[in-house]
Amino acid sequence: MPNKVAVYRREHFNAAHRLFRADWNDEQNFSVFGKCANPSFHGHNYELEVKVVGVPDSTTGFVIDLKVLSDIIQEEVIERFDHRNLNLDTPYFKEVNPTAENICIVIYELLRGRIDADLDIQVRLYETPRNFVEYPVL
Amino acid sequence: MPNKVAVYRREHFNAAHRLFRADWNDEQNFSVFGKCANPSFHGHNYELEVKVVGVPDSTTGFVIDLKVLSDIIQEEVIERFDHRNLNLDTPYFKEVNPTAENICIVIYELLRGRIDADLDIQVRLYETPRNFVEYPVL
Amino acid sequence: MPNKVAVYRREHFNAAHRLFRADWNDEQNFSVFGKCANPSFHGHNYELEVKVVGVPDSTTGFVIDLKVLSDIIQEEVIERFDHRNLNLDTPYFKEVNPTAENICIVIYELLRGRIDADLDIQVRLYETPRNFVEYPVL
Amino acid sequence: MPNKVAVYRREHFNAAHRLFRADWNDEQNFSVFGKCANPSFHGHNYELEVKVVGVPDSTTGFVIDLKVLSDIIQEEVIERFDHRNLNLDTPYFKEVNPTAENICIVIYELLRGRIDADLDIQVRLYETPRNFVEYPVL
Amino acid sequence: MPNKVAVYRREHFNAAHRLFRADWNDEQNFSVFGKCANPSFHGHNYELEVKVVGVPDSTTGFVIDLKVLSDIIQEEVIERFDHRNLNLDTPYFKEVNPTAENICIVIYELLRGRIDADLDIQVRLYETPRNFVEYPVL
Amino acid sequence: MPNKVAVYRREHFNAAHRLFRADWNDEQNFSVFGKCANPSFHGHNYELEVKVVGVPDSTTGFVIDLKVLSDIIQEEVIERFDHRNLNLDTPYFKEVNPTAENICIVIYELLRGRIDADLDIQVRLYETPRNFVEYPVL
Repeated sequence: MPNKVAVYRREHFNAAHRLFRADWNDEQNFSVFGKCANPSFHGHNYELEVKVVGVPDSTTGFVIDLKVLSDIIQEEVIERFDHRNLNLDTPYFKEVNPTAENICIVIYELLRGRIDADLDIQVRLYETPRNFVEYPVL
Repeated sequence: MPNKVAVYRREHFNAAHRLFRADWNDEQNFSVFGKCANPSFHGHNYELEVKVVGVPDSTTGFVIDLKVLSDIIQEEVIERFDHRNLNLDTPYFKEVNPTAENICIVIYELLRGRIDADLDIQVRLYETPRNFVEYPVL
Repeated sequence: MPNKVAVYRREHFNAAHRLFRADWNDEQNFSVFGKCANPSFHGHNYELEVKVVGVPDSTTGFVIDLKVLSDIIQEEVIERFDHRNLNLDTPYFKEVNPTAENICIVIYELLRGRIDADLDIQVRLYETPRNFVEYPVL
Repeated sequence: MPNKVAVYRREHFNAAHRLFRADWNDEQNFSVFGKCANPSFHGHNYELEVKVVGVPDSTTGFVIDLKVLSDIIQEEVIERFDHRNLNLDTPYFKEVNPTAENICIVIYELLRGRIDADLDIQVRLYETPRNFVEYPVL
Repeated sequence: MPNKVAVYRREHFNAAHRLFRADWNDEQNFSVFGKCANPSFHGHNYELEVKVVGVPDSTTGFVIDLKVLSDIIQEEVIERFDHRNLNLDTPYFKEVNPTAENICIVIYELLRGRIDADLDIQVRLYETPRNFVEYPVL
Repeated sequence: MPNKVAVYRREHFNAAHRLFRADWNDEQNFSVFGKCANPSFHGHNYELEVKVVGVPDSTTGFVIDLKVLSDIIQEEVIERFDHRNLNLDTPYFKEVNPTAENICIVIYELLRGRIDADLDIQVRLYETPRNFVEYPVL
């Protein structure tokens, strides 16, 4: 049985966001989300790592051409999120908070449909070099 | 004559900003500032490097205690800028654009008054790992 | 069924240590532990990465508030280990060597009791950028 | 039952390579492999991360002495690949392309025979900081 | 008098090269250039940092638009060197060795003509994270 | 007139140290040096960057062969300081504190005598990624 290999591609985007619940008042929001609740927004350089797992193609030696993977990430994620306000400029965080966890799940869903179903994928998102998340948990 | 040594301290803050001129229309702003002109803002993980040059104290061996330098940066820069919108939440970028160049000059001015006049200082500001600025030019 | 997400927080501490067995003589210790057996100690900038796995809270979007996780790491690990001699200043390495493996297990045990039992945790410890360990193996 | 710990060692080598199939013409090769098909070769600073999983020895506290692991990587990988042309100077990529996937599998095979069978190993290979692979998938 | 600010842009390219003198025999070349003399070539991920010094424009706040600087580096350097063999595929290293020093000088000359004469420039080139060069010395 | 180029080599060592004055009591030492005064020592992964400035040799294209520079740093610095206690195991910090400033000056003096007098040198020492020093100030 041919063996599986994991390949990774790293991309980045810069965005603004704010953590808050519209059904809470300012005091509640600041008490739970701290300075991340600032109504004028703040922002991050997000680093995105996409893992794709599968058997390398015997003709090319690629699990997936990383140039193709990079293009898919560009179209599905970077064009939607880069230099945007995640709360105001995208439709994904109207009902849920743009926490790193939720952004990571949204990115996974955006990519999942574009990559062959026989390849597993996982997304890691760095909000800062010291805070990051991963979805799904394999 | 005792010799000078340079010491550096690195700190970081996360902020939102937007590049634009209020006296230009959207078309002009997007043509000059590109996606950085997004009216909903975007953001960065700013990394700040402060260089202090002087003769080490013969008693302690310090040019400046880096814990003291860190506290000064905290009070003068991080508390003002971290998790803030540079355009809306600070008074420094009403008349000038919050480009990395201008943010760096503002940070230098904020720090200069707090550090002994016989010590030279220089500020380097990373907007991203690939875009950064330095002021003054020594 | 709601999906699990992994979140990570990175912290650091600086410490001295020495690898040796009290029941061996110097020759035996140097032959097994090399220069790590130096009786005067040496030291490292340890980087610590704590992974917490669980279902994001539907109200906040957090698996665990990373500020809370950071505070727990601070109290349980950094205050005990930072700027300390692991052999002399802590009770954990009297019977076992402070190898990266053993330090990592000790840190896991210190944190495990402070984090909700329905959340899985894993600890990665960098002794240098080129030598690091992870526990438990999930 | 004693617990398993994973230990990692990072090494690097610099090499030249070219992606192409000898049974394709230039047009086919450039259409599939892009500029990586350049017949004059190009190159990379490869970063190699070897993970070894096992129960720490109760006498030393080591899963494997990382100095020993480093020496094995040196002998099996660095001496064969560093400052070499992977296509011309090694026997491993005559039939298969030196993609990161295939280089990673070759490195795994070279190391597997040198490390105790009761220890699991995994290899991660960075071709660039943004493109990397891992084998096997645990 | 308005003040000068330095701005930096970082780019990268991957290339193969070989250090040798055509008027020396193999023995001489290996004795001076070591494994860098390998006739089959080896390669690197080069990281390039371009510094531009000048007074920020009072209208935009830019010393130079870093997007413009990035495009110039792309056209003058990346398109010429990326995924190329520096000895075989470029005209610059027929008479001189492609040492980091000489590559850096060539890059400076390529960029100097494209950037306003009233702006000073300096080029830093990383051959590996541990070996790098800078030209000119300001 | 031929032009000068700067070349850099990065090395590292791990060491223990303690900041204190023997003529002060514990209270004085802790009040000035904080937790760095811990009598049991603490430690760091020091990163060392040595800059050498000169005109590249017209035969080789080297300012200085970085392999030679690396060997000199190894002999003069790494062998003396790696896996050592700077206060106890070296003669350099009996009268002065092993602050980063003073370690950097000592390293400069150790290297200066081994490198051609027509080459300028400068030393940068990272005590942590956020605290570093440079000597001399050029």
